[in-house]
Amino acid sequence: MRLYNSPISGNCYKVRLLLAHLGLPYETSFVDAVDRTQKRDELDGLSPSRRVPTLVLDDGRPLAESNAIVWYLGEGTRFVPGDPYARAQMLQWMFWEQYDHEPAIAVLRFLKTYSGRPDWYEAQREHLYKRGVKALDAMEQHLKGRDWFAGDEMSLADIVLYAYTHAADEGGFDLEPYPAVRAWLSRVAAEPGHVPIDA
Amino acid sequence: MRLYNSPISGNCYKVRLLLAHLGLPYETSFVDAVDRTQKRDELDGLSPSRRVPTLVLDDGRPLAESNAIVWYLGEGTRFVPGDPYARAQMLQWMFWEQYDHEPAIAVLRFLKTYSGRPDWYEAQREHLYKRGVKALDAMEQHLKGRDWFAGDEMSLADIVLYAYTHAADEGGFDLEPYPAVRAWLSRVAAEPGHVPIDA
Repeated sequence: MRLYNSPISGNCYKVRLLLAHLGLPYETSFVDAVDRTQKRDELDGLSPSRRVPTLVLDDGRPLAESNAIVWYLGEGTRFVPGDPYARAQMLQWMFWEQYDHEPAIAVLRFLKTYSGRPDWYEAQREHLYKRGVKALDAMEQHLKGRDWFAGDEMSLADIVLYAYTHAADEGGFDLEPYPAVRAWLSRVAAEPGHVPIDA
Repeated sequence: MRLYNSPISGNCYKVRLLLAHLGLPYETSFVDAVDRTQKRDELDGLSPSRRVPTLVLDDGRPLAESNAIVWYLGEGTRFVPGDPYARAQMLQWMFWEQYDHEPAIAVLRFLKTYSGRPDWYEAQREHLYKRGVKALDAMEQHLKGRDWFAGDEMSLADIVLYAYTHAADEGGFDLEPYPAVRAWLSRVAAEPGHVPIDA
Protein backbone atom coordinates (compact mmCIF):
# COMPACT_ATOMS: atom_id res chain seq x y z
CA MET A 1 0.00 0.00 0.00
CA ARG A 2 1.10 3.55 -0.68
CA LEU A 3 -0.07 6.46 1.45
CA TYR A 4 0.04 9.93 0.00
CA ASN A 5 1.08 11.61 3.18
CA SER A 6 1.83 14.93 4.80
CA PRO A 7 3.75 14.56 8.08
CA ILE A 8 2.03 17.52 9.74
CA SER A 9 -1.53 16.72 8.65
CA GLY A 10 -3.71 15.34 11.43
CA ASN A 11 -5.89 13.66 8.81
CA CYS A 12 -2.82 11.74 7.61
CA TYR A 13 -1.80 11.00 11.21
CA LYS A 14 -5.14 9.19 11.73
CA VAL A 15 -4.13 6.69 9.05
CA ARG A 16 -0.52 6.32 10.25
CA LEU A 17 -1.68 5.80 13.84
CA LEU A 18 -4.09 3.04 12.85
CA LEU A 19 -1.50 1.40 10.58
CA ALA A 20 0.95 1.38 13.52
CA HIS A 21 -1.66 -0.24 15.79
CA LEU A 22 -2.39 -2.86 13.15
CA GLY A 23 1.28 -3.45 12.34
CA LEU A 24 0.65 -3.15 8.61
CA PRO A 25 3.52 -2.29 6.27
CA TYR A 26 3.14 0.61 3.84
CA GLU A 27 5.10 3.10 1.80
CA THR A 28 4.57 6.83 1.73
CA SER A 29 4.69 9.47 -0.95
CA PHE A 30 5.52 12.80 0.61
CA VAL A 31 3.11 15.57 -0.30
CA ASP A 32 4.27 19.01 0.68
CA ALA A 33 0.92 19.91 2.12
CA VAL A 34 0.38 22.84 4.35
CA ASP A 35 -2.35 20.71 5.89
CA ARG A 36 -5.88 20.63 4.45
CA THR A 37 -5.63 23.35 1.83
CA GLN A 38 -3.33 21.23 -0.28
CA LYS A 39 -4.61 20.02 -3.66
CA ARG A 40 -2.37 18.13 -5.99
CA ASP A 41 -2.60 17.14 -9.62
CA GLU A 42 -0.90 13.84 -8.75
CA LEU A 43 -4.03 12.99 -6.74
CA ASP A 44 -6.38 13.69 -9.67
CA GLY A 45 -8.46 10.57 -10.23
CA LEU A 46 -7.38 9.16 -6.85
CA SER A 47 -9.27 11.53 -4.53
CA PRO A 48 -12.42 13.57 -5.29
CA SER A 49 -10.92 16.53 -3.46
CA ARG A 50 -7.27 15.87 -4.38
CA ARG A 51 -6.31 16.04 -0.73
CA VAL A 52 -4.09 13.92 1.47
CA PRO A 53 -4.39 11.35 2.90
CA THR A 54 -5.07 9.15 -0.11
CA LEU A 55 -4.32 5.45 0.02
CA VAL A 56 -3.46 3.37 -3.04
CA LEU A 57 -3.90 -0.35 -2.50
CA ASP A 58 -1.45 -2.97 -3.78
CA ASP A 59 -3.66 -3.56 -6.83
CA GLY A 60 -3.76 0.16 -7.65
CA ARG A 61 -7.25 0.94 -6.43
CA PRO A 62 -7.40 4.33 -4.65
CA LEU A 63 -9.26 5.36 -1.53
CA ALA A 64 -9.59 8.90 -0.22
CA GLU A 65 -11.06 10.70 2.81
CA SER A 66 -9.20 9.97 6.04
CA ASN A 67 -12.19 8.51 7.88
CA ALA A 68 -13.11 6.20 4.98
CA ILE A 69 -9.49 5.00 4.81
CA VAL A 70 -9.41 4.12 8.51
CA TRP A 71 -12.78 2.39 8.09
CA TYR A 72 -11.33 0.24 5.28
CA LEU A 73 -8.22 -0.66 7.26
CA GLY A 74 -10.09 -1.08 10.55
CA GLU A 75 -13.10 -3.15 9.50
CA GLY A 76 -12.91 -6.58 11.06
CA THR A 77 -10.34 -5.50 13.68
CA ARG A 78 -10.81 -4.59 17.36
CA PHE A 79 -11.12 -0.94 16.37
CA VAL A 80 -14.63 -1.41 14.90
CA PRO A 81 -17.26 -2.55 17.44
CA GLY A 82 -19.13 -5.73 16.61
CA ASP A 83 -22.43 -4.37 17.88
CA PRO A 84 -24.39 -2.57 15.13
CA TYR A 85 -25.51 0.32 17.37
CA ALA A 86 -21.99 0.88 18.75
CA ARG A 87 -20.65 0.74 15.19
CA ALA A 88 -23.17 3.40 14.09
CA GLN A 89 -22.29 5.54 17.12
CA MET A 90 -18.64 5.27 16.11
CA LEU A 91 -19.55 6.54 12.64
CA GLN A 92 -21.71 9.29 14.19
CA TRP A 93 -18.64 10.70 15.95
CA MET A 94 -16.54 10.26 12.80
CA PHE A 95 -19.02 12.25 10.70
CA TRP A 96 -19.28 14.80 13.50
CA GLU A 97 -15.48 15.06 13.53
CA GLN A 98 -15.44 16.01 9.85
CA TYR A 99 -18.36 18.45 10.10
CA ASP A 100 -17.99 20.15 13.49
CA HIS A 101 -14.50 19.46 14.84
CA GLU A 102 -11.96 19.40 12.02
CA PRO A 103 -13.23 22.51 10.15
CA ALA A 104 -12.68 24.54 13.34
CA ILE A 105 -9.83 22.95 15.29
CA ALA A 106 -7.70 21.68 12.40
CA VAL A 107 -8.20 24.81 10.33
CA LEU A 108 -7.29 27.15 13.18
CA ARG A 109 -4.20 25.03 13.91
CA PHE A 110 -3.19 25.32 10.28
CA LEU A 111 -3.78 29.07 10.19
CA LYS A 112 -2.00 29.79 13.48
CA THR A 113 0.99 27.45 13.29
CA TYR A 114 1.58 26.37 9.70
CA SER A 115 0.13 28.85 7.20
CA GLY A 116 2.72 31.58 7.60
CA ARG A 117 -0.16 34.03 7.21
CA PRO A 118 -0.96 35.74 10.53
CA ASP A 119 -3.49 37.92 8.67
CA TRP A 120 -5.50 34.84 7.66
CA TYR A 121 -5.35 33.60 11.23
CA GLU A 122 -6.54 36.92 12.65
CA ALA A 123 -9.40 37.16 10.14
CA GLN A 124 -10.82 33.77 11.11
CA ARG A 125 -9.69 33.44 14.71
CA GLU A 126 -12.81 34.59 16.55
CA HIS A 127 -15.30 32.68 14.40
CA LEU A 128 -13.38 29.39 14.35
CA TYR A 129 -12.41 29.60 18.01
CA LYS A 130 -16.11 29.72 18.98
CA ARG A 131 -16.86 26.71 16.78
CA GLY A 132 -13.90 24.81 18.22
CA VAL A 133 -14.96 25.49 21.81
CA LYS A 134 -18.43 24.13 21.01
CA ALA A 135 -16.83 20.96 19.66
CA LEU A 136 -14.62 20.56 22.75
CA ASP A 137 -17.66 21.16 24.99
CA ALA A 138 -19.55 18.36 23.20
CA MET A 139 -16.59 16.00 23.64
CA GLU A 140 -16.25 16.85 27.35
CA GLN A 141 -19.98 16.28 27.93
CA HIS A 142 -19.89 12.90 26.17
CA LEU A 143 -16.71 11.67 27.88
CA LYS A 144 -17.90 12.36 31.43
CA GLY A 145 -18.28 8.87 32.87
CA ARG A 146 -17.10 7.17 29.66
CA ASP A 147 -13.69 5.88 28.65
CA TRP A 148 -14.23 5.83 24.89
CA PHE A 149 -16.46 7.54 22.32
CA ALA A 150 -18.35 4.44 21.17
CA GLY A 151 -18.53 0.93 22.59
CA ASP A 152 -16.39 -0.44 25.41
CA GLU A 153 -12.96 -0.19 23.79
CA MET A 154 -10.92 2.26 21.81
CA SER A 155 -12.39 2.49 18.31
CA LEU A 156 -11.80 4.40 15.09
CA ALA A 157 -13.82 7.28 16.59
CA ASP A 158 -11.15 7.74 19.27
CA ILE A 159 -8.34 7.54 16.72
CA VAL A 160 -9.81 10.14 14.39
CA LEU A 161 -10.78 12.53 17.20
CA TYR A 162 -7.35 12.18 18.83
CA ALA A 163 -5.54 13.41 15.72
CA TYR A 164 -6.43 17.09 15.96
CA THR A 165 -7.60 17.26 19.59
CA HIS A 166 -4.14 16.34 20.89
CA ALA A 167 -2.70 19.21 18.84
CA ALA A 168 -5.43 21.72 19.67
CA ASP A 169 -2.94 23.99 21.48
CA GLU A 170 -1.35 24.70 18.09
CA GLY A 171 -4.66 26.33 17.18
CA GLY A 172 -4.77 28.42 20.32
CA PHE A 173 -7.11 26.14 22.30
CA ASP A 174 -6.50 25.57 26.01
CA LEU A 175 -7.60 22.11 27.20
CA GLU A 176 -7.31 23.02 30.89
CA PRO A 177 -11.16 23.37 31.23
CA TYR A 178 -11.65 19.87 29.75
CA PRO A 179 -10.53 17.27 32.32
CA ALA A 180 -12.47 14.41 30.71
CA VAL A 181 -10.95 15.21 27.33
CA ARG A 182 -7.45 15.35 28.82
CA ALA A 183 -7.90 12.02 30.59
CA TRP A 184 -9.16 10.47 27.34
CA LEU A 185 -6.15 11.86 25.39
CA SER A 186 -3.84 10.17 27.93
CA ARG A 187 -5.82 6.95 27.61
CA VAL A 188 -5.43 6.92 23.82
CA ALA A 189 -1.70 7.70 24.02
CA ALA A 190 -1.17 4.91 26.60
CA GLU A 191 -2.56 2.18 24.33
CA PRO A 192 0.09 -0.36 23.25
CA GLY A 193 1.16 0.40 19.68
CA HIS A 194 0.56 4.15 19.91
CA VAL A 195 2.85 6.43 17.90
CA PRO A 196 3.13 10.22 18.06
CA ILE A 197 2.36 12.44 15.05
CA ASP A 198 6.10 12.95 14.36
CA ALA A 199 7.08 9.31 14.69
CA MET B 1 -38.53 4.74 15.94
CA ARG B 2 -38.89 8.48 16.26
CA LEU B 3 -37.19 10.84 13.82
CA TYR B 4 -36.59 14.42 14.90
CA ASN B 5 -37.30 15.91 11.54
CA SER B 6 -37.41 19.13 9.56
CA PRO B 7 -39.41 18.80 6.32
CA ILE B 8 -37.15 21.17 4.36
CA SER B 9 -33.81 19.79 5.57
CA GLY B 10 -31.99 17.70 2.98
CA ASN B 11 -30.13 15.92 5.78
CA CYS B 12 -33.51 14.78 7.17
CA TYR B 13 -34.67 13.88 3.66
CA LYS B 14 -31.79 11.39 3.36
CA VAL B 15 -33.23 9.44 6.29
CA ARG B 16 -36.85 9.67 5.11
CA LEU B 17 -35.86 8.55 1.60
CA LEU B 18 -34.04 5.48 2.91
CA LEU B 19 -36.87 4.64 5.32
CA ALA B 20 -39.30 4.79 2.38
CA HIS B 21 -37.10 2.46 0.31
CA LEU B 22 -36.86 0.04 3.23
CA GLY B 23 -40.58 0.28 4.06
CA LEU B 24 -39.84 0.86 7.75
CA PRO B 25 -42.49 2.51 9.96
CA TYR B 26 -41.51 5.54 12.07
CA GLU B 27 -42.93 8.57 13.80
CA THR B 28 -41.67 12.10 13.44
CA SER B 29 -41.24 14.98 15.84
CA PHE B 30 -41.41 18.22 13.92
CA VAL B 31 -38.49 20.53 14.54
CA ASP B 32 -38.95 24.03 13.19
CA ALA B 33 -35.49 24.08 11.70
CA VAL B 34 -34.36 26.58 9.20
CA ASP B 35 -32.15 23.81 7.92
CA ARG B 36 -28.70 23.21 9.37
CA THR B 37 -28.41 26.21 11.69
CA GLN B 38 -31.04 24.77 13.98
CA LYS B 39 -29.99 23.69 17.46
CA ARG B 40 -32.53 22.55 19.98
CA ASP B 41 -32.44 21.96 23.72
CA GLU B 42 -34.77 18.99 23.18
CA LEU B 43 -31.91 17.33 21.31
CA ASP B 44 -29.44 17.86 24.17
CA GLY B 45 -28.03 14.47 25.09
CA LEU B 46 -29.38 12.93 21.87
CA SER B 47 -27.09 14.62 19.32
CA PRO B 48 -23.59 16.07 19.91
CA SER B 49 -24.50 19.05 17.73
CA ARG B 50 -28.21 19.23 18.70
CA ARG B 51 -29.16 19.18 15.04
CA VAL B 52 -31.77 17.33 13.05
CA PRO B 53 -32.01 14.62 11.92
CA THR B 54 -31.74 12.66 15.14
CA LEU B 55 -33.20 9.18 15.41
CA VAL B 56 -34.41 7.65 18.67
CA LEU B 57 -34.73 3.87 18.55
CA ASP B 58 -37.63 1.96 20.09
CA ASP B 59 -35.56 1.27 23.19
CA GLY B 60 -34.73 4.96 23.60
CA ARG B 61 -31.14 4.91 22.34
CA PRO B 62 -30.35 7.99 20.22
CA LEU B 63 -28.35 8.29 17.03
CA ALA B 64 -27.33 11.53 15.34
CA GLU B 65 -25.59 12.66 12.14
CA SER B 66 -27.58 11.97 8.99
CA ASN B 67 -24.95 9.77 7.35
CA ALA B 68 -24.48 7.64 10.49
CA ILE B 69 -28.27 7.21 10.75
CA VAL B 70 -28.57 5.97 7.17
CA TRP B 71 -25.60 3.66 7.82
CA TYR B 72 -27.40 2.15 10.83
CA LEU B 73 -30.65 1.68 8.92
CA GLY B 74 -28.96 0.54 5.74
CA GLU B 75 -26.38 -1.95 7.03
CA GLY B 76 -27.27 -5.43 5.81
CA THR B 77 -29.60 -4.15 3.08
CA ARG B 78 -29.02 -3.78 -0.67
CA PHE B 79 -27.96 -0.16 -0.09
CA VAL B 80 -24.60 -1.15 1.47
CA PRO B 81 -22.28 -3.05 -0.90
CA GLY B 82 -21.08 -6.44 0.29
CA ASP B 83 -17.58 -5.91 -1.08
CA PRO B 84 -15.25 -4.22 1.48
CA TYR B 85 -13.63 -1.89 -1.05
CA ALA B 86 -16.98 -0.79 -2.52
CA ARG B 87 -18.27 -0.27 1.01
CA ALA B 88 -15.28 1.93 1.85
CA GLN B 89 -15.75 3.86 -1.40
CA MET B 90 -19.37 4.44 -0.41
CA LEU B 91 -18.17 5.87 2.91
CA GLN B 92 -15.54 7.94 1.08
CA TRP B 93 -18.29 9.73 -0.83
CA MET B 94 -20.41 10.07 2.31
CA PHE B 95 -17.54 11.74 4.21
CA TRP B 96 -16.84 13.87 1.16
CA GLU B 97 -20.51 14.88 1.07
CA GLN B 98 -20.33 16.21 4.62
CA TYR B 99 -16.99 17.97 4.13
CA ASP B 100 -17.04 19.35 0.58
CA HIS B 101 -20.61 19.21 -0.73
CA GLU B 102 -23.09 19.97 2.05
CA PRO B 103 -21.21 22.93 3.59
CA ALA B 104 -21.39 24.69 0.19
CA ILE B 105 -24.51 23.48 -1.61
CA ALA B 106 -26.83 22.98 1.37
CA VAL B 107 -25.70 26.15 3.11
CA LEU B 108 -26.14 28.30 0.01
CA ARG B 109 -29.62 26.78 -0.53
CA PHE B 110 -30.51 27.65 3.04
CA LEU B 111 -29.18 31.20 2.74
CA LYS B 112 -30.83 31.91 -0.62
CA THR B 113 -34.20 30.23 -0.23
CA TYR B 114 -34.97 29.67 3.46
CA SER B 115 -33.01 32.07 5.68
CA GLY B 116 -35.02 35.21 4.97
CA ARG B 117 -31.70 37.07 5.14
CA PRO B 118 -30.64 38.22 1.67
CA ASP B 119 -27.73 40.04 3.31
CA TRP B 120 -26.33 36.76 4.65
CA TYR B 121 -26.74 35.21 1.23
CA GLU B 122 -24.94 38.05 -0.51
CA ALA B 123 -22.08 37.98 1.98
CA GLN B 124 -21.35 34.30 1.40
CA ARG B 125 -22.57 33.81 -2.16
CA GLU B 126 -19.30 34.11 -4.09
CA HIS B 127 -17.23 32.00 -1.70
CA LEU B 128 -19.75 29.18 -1.32
CA TYR B 129 -20.70 29.15 -4.99
CA LYS B 130 -17.05 28.46 -5.93
CA ARG B 131 -16.89 25.60 -3.42
CA GLY B 132 -20.18 24.19 -4.68
CA VAL B 133 -19.04 24.25 -8.30
CA LYS B 134 -15.91 22.32 -7.32
CA ALA B 135 -18.09 19.71 -5.66
CA LEU B 136 -20.36 19.41 -8.71
CA ASP B 137 -17.29 19.16 -10.96
CA ALA B 138 -15.98 16.24 -8.87
CA MET B 139 -19.35 14.48 -9.10
CA GLU B 140 -19.54 14.98 -12.87
CA GLN B 141 -16.01 13.62 -13.35
CA HIS B 142 -16.74 10.54 -11.24
CA LEU B 143 -20.13 9.78 -12.83
CA LYS B 144 -18.86 9.84 -16.42
CA GLY B 145 -19.18 6.22 -17.46
CA ARG B 146 -20.62 5.13 -14.11
CA ASP B 147 -24.22 4.65 -13.01
CA TRP B 148 -23.67 4.92 -9.24
CA PHE B 149 -21.12 6.41 -6.87
CA ALA B 150 -19.89 3.13 -5.37
CA GLY B 151 -20.40 -0.48 -6.39
CA ASP B 152 -22.80 -1.70 -9.06
CA GLU B 153 -26.10 -0.61 -7.52
CA MET B 154 -27.59 2.43 -5.84
CA SER B 155 -26.06 2.73 -2.37
CA LEU B 156 -26.23 5.04 0.60
CA ALA B 157 -23.71 7.30 -1.17
CA ASP B 158 -26.27 7.98 -3.91
CA ILE B 159 -29.03 8.61 -1.38
CA VAL B 160 -27.05 11.12 0.67
CA LEU B 161 -25.66 12.93 -2.37
CA TYR B 162 -29.09 13.10 -3.99
CA ALA B 163 -30.60 15.01 -1.06
CA TYR B 164 -29.00 18.39 -1.68
CA THR B 165 -27.86 17.92 -5.30
CA HIS B 166 -31.45 17.58 -6.55
CA ALA B 167 -32.27 20.89 -4.84
CA ALA B 168 -29.10 22.70 -5.88
CA ASP B 169 -31.12 25.19 -7.95
CA GLU B 170 -32.51 26.58 -4.67
CA GLY B 171 -28.94 27.61 -3.90
CA GLY B 172 -28.45 29.27 -7.27
CA PHE B 173 -26.61 26.39 -8.96
CA ASP B 174 -27.36 25.54 -12.60
CA LEU B 175 -27.00 21.82 -13.38
CA GLU B 176 -27.09 22.37 -17.16
CA PRO B 177 -23.28 21.91 -17.49
CA TYR B 178 -23.48 18.58 -15.65
CA PRO B 179 -25.11 15.98 -17.93
CA ALA B 180 -23.77 12.97 -16.00
CA VAL B 181 -25.06 14.42 -12.73
CA ARG B 182 -28.47 15.10 -14.27
CA ALA B 183 -28.73 11.56 -15.66
CA TRP B 184 -27.77 10.17 -12.25
CA LEU B 185 -30.41 12.31 -10.51
CA SER B 186 -33.03 10.85 -12.86
CA ARG B 187 -31.71 7.35 -12.17
CA VAL B 188 -32.07 7.81 -8.41
CA ALA B 189 -35.57 9.28 -8.74
CA ALA B 190 -36.66 6.40 -11.00
CA GLU B 191 -35.83 3.69 -8.43
CA PRO B 192 -38.92 1.88 -7.13
CA GLY B 193 -39.80 3.20 -3.68
CA HIS B 194 -38.46 6.71 -4.29
CA VAL B 195 -40.23 9.60 -2.56
CA PRO B 196 -39.74 13.34 -3.13
CA ILE B 197 -38.54 15.68 -0.38
CA ASP B 198 -42.08 17.00 0.21
CA ALA B 199 -43.75 13.58 0.27
